[in-house]
Amino acid sequence: MPGIKDRVAVAGVGATRFTEHYEKDQEDLLVEAVEEACTDAGIERKDIQAIWCGVYYRFTGLSGTTAADALRLYGIPSTRVENYCASGMDAFRNACFAVAAGVYDIVLACGVEKITDQGSHGLPNVLRDSIPPFMPPASAPALFAMAATRTFAERGWTREDLARVAVKNHANGAKHPKAHFRREITMETALEAPMIAWPLGRFDSCAVSDGAAAVIITTPEIAKKMNHKDDYVVVKANGLAVTTASPMHNPGFDYLGFPATRMAAKQAYDEAGITDPARQISLAEVHDCFTITEILNYEDLGFCEPGEGAAFIREGRSAADGNLPVNPSGGLKSFGHPIGATGCRMIGEITRQLQGRAEGVQVKDPELGLAHNLGGPGAVCSVTILGRN
Amino acid sequence: MPGIKDRVAVAGVGATRFTEHYEKDQEDLLVEAVEEACTDAGIERKDIQAIWCGVYYRFTGLSGTTAADALRLYGIPSTRVENYCASGMDAFRNACFAVAAGVYDIVLACGVEKITDQGSHGLPNVLRDSIPPFMPPASAPALFAMAATRTFAERGWTREDLARVAVKNHANGAKHPKAHFRREITMETALEAPMIAWPLGRFDSCAVSDGAAAVIITTPEIAKKMNHKDDYVVVKANGLAVTTASPMHNPGFDYLGFPATRMAAKQAYDEAGITDPARQISLAEVHDCFTITEILNYEDLGFCEPGEGAAFIREGRSAADGNLPVNPSGGLKSFGHPIGATGCRMIGEITRQLQGRAEGVQVKDPELGLAHNLGGPGAVCSVTILGRN
Repeated sequence: MPGIKDRVAVAGVGATRFTEHYEKDQEDLLVEAVEEACTDAGIERKDIQAIWCGVYYRFTGLSGTTAADALRLYGIPSTRVENYCASGMDAFRNACFAVAAGVYDIVLACGVEKITDQGSHGLPNVLRDSIPPFMPPASAPALFAMAATRTFAERGWTREDLARVAVKNHANGAKHPKAHFRREITMETALEAPMIAWPLGRFDSCAVSDGAAAVIITTPEIAKKMNHKDDYVVVKANGLAVTTASPMHNPGFDYLGFPATRMAAKQAYDEAGITDPARQISLAEVHDCFTITEILNYEDLGFCEPGEGAAFIREGRSAADGNLPVNPSGGLKSFGHPIGATGCRMIGEITRQLQGRAEGVQVKDPELGLAHNLGGPGAVCSVTILGRN
Repeated sequence: MPGIKDRVAVAGVGATRFTEHYEKDQEDLLVEAVEEACTDAGIERKDIQAIWCGVYYRFTGLSGTTAADALRLYGIPSTRVENYCASGMDAFRNACFAVAAGVYDIVLACGVEKITDQGSHGLPNVLRDSIPPFMPPASAPALFAMAATRTFAERGWTREDLARVAVKNHANGAKHPKAHFRREITMETALEAPMIAWPLGRFDSCAVSDGAAAVIITTPEIAKKMNHKDDYVVVKANGLAVTTASPMHNPGFDYLGFPATRMAAKQAYDEAGITDPARQISLAEVHDCFTITEILNYEDLGFCEPGEGAAFIREGRSAADGNLPVNPSGGLKSFGHPIGATGCRMIGEITRQLQGRAEGVQVKDPELGLAHNLGGPGAVCSVTILGRN
């Protein structure tokens, strides 16, 4: 099977700032992100032939009309893709397939979530709605905290290791004009913050944000005639792997990483022909819903050996000036996490990095970038690899 | 753009009975439908390389794990597609794109909904959850009733015309072993039934059902080596068109048909090279959520001229022995409507009809079949055309 390697191009990217957008509704956010992506690609909105929109919460988006209504793009196909926190990257994946199939020339993948202000729905109901009756009731911090305590016991990792991730991501996000939390923090700030679910404190947890992100996708042949004719980005691979809806409730789960990430990464590395990700991947945007998740991602993505995750952050290897910068945007922790929007936001960040025009910290001369979305409590993972053409 | 015409094959189909499945959960239903489809295709479940699952209600399905967990198919991609009542057919569409792109050899499109028994969720909450806060609160019967009264005023159609659709579809469904309501009804039964939203009575409205449906999709080359090597079915076209989330609340809406259907049908006819659907389409499974919808579908799909919809049913042209049989399965009215499952169920019915092995009424020697899903209050439409290889 040929996969989509080198058959699909990213022609333009856009994103709103991720923050509490009390003054804008989800339609405003989508329009802002898509207009930026269209301008970046050098097309008009009406050139879009089909849409895939990643939205997680039902009250922020329902059906393909979520995007079509916002953009006033009627009469074309528009599909809502929902796959937990990987919704946005799965929207991107399906859009890539349609272009690779030759069905459309220019399509839009996007994602949006407006969750900080939902009137009567509000945050308590966000939490209620996030746990369907077939899943055991446990909050995300409580679940990921178990992974942290397990690594403390098994690996000897510490709260300081977690705090290092928060400090790094805040240092990066502080420089990004679109990040939710644009300020640096100290180790003391992270360690002394209020506890949410021990050992995860406030700075170990990403926040709830509003925002939207958009990607214009086309073929390399067409990209050569668009704005980024010289520096369009090509899709090298996408992997998507699903496990059970709640692997953390599985008695066999070891809490030392996420099988979904390992399986999605293997798919993507096989497709892209990557045999040594630690050397071949220039930078990554990974799913740091919690600081412990980022450290486990290092291992699951093959950036280091199992058990070496904490050393990876301690030694600064994932810092902006490290040998494999991770989350130079600030990550979910500092950039924010409007669920459906995050996957396409990551694709946009990697694209701009590969083009040498990152909005925040620019990594030096990257060749291959990886975006990683982990959805549910480790239930689903999508890994996308992008490269310079 | 080449579209997917003749590039994708239906290798196997399966469905549960659509009914009140109090004794089975949604996982049972999905497994039953998928096992039947695998057996029909001559494959094992583990041969499936990727999954698309159409699910509408959040409490019946969330993320790609909905299907992966039921089928115990872990480590492969699984995507939830949600597009109102067109969720199942949009899952099929995306699965077709992935196969046409050459990314996978054998994939599964499926749909499921378990809504008659939801414990504390129950039917009142089904209704509450079906109307997100950004949509005006009006029930589906109330909205579609306005289309009926409009046609009464503009076209001179009557409650008898609506009842004829119910009588036809019950006559067909009575013969189908998997239909929800397996009994014939008389005009009197339909006309004297309790009113739901005038002029739509109980027999003008499809019911809430539980059920699942599945389709195994591959390339024609591979289908030639599978169970249906001689009579596999090929995809001739798919059209999907989205309008606003609630076109019926648009002051410009004329209530005499659905623009989404007309636009999706045009896409599909253009792709399939169909210039005279009334003559070229052998049979159709259309979205008769209400009897008035089926009559308007005749017009929107080009089976007759605008205004002639009622004549089409009066003259028996859509009857099982008519020149363009519509809903020989019994349709949503008699067969039932577990929302996410309906699109794939229709694909399965058309496939079996083209293969001469319909489970209920067999249409005589069909060449081309059309499946039509209308979602939301006319918000989104998917049209799939299948043909003999």
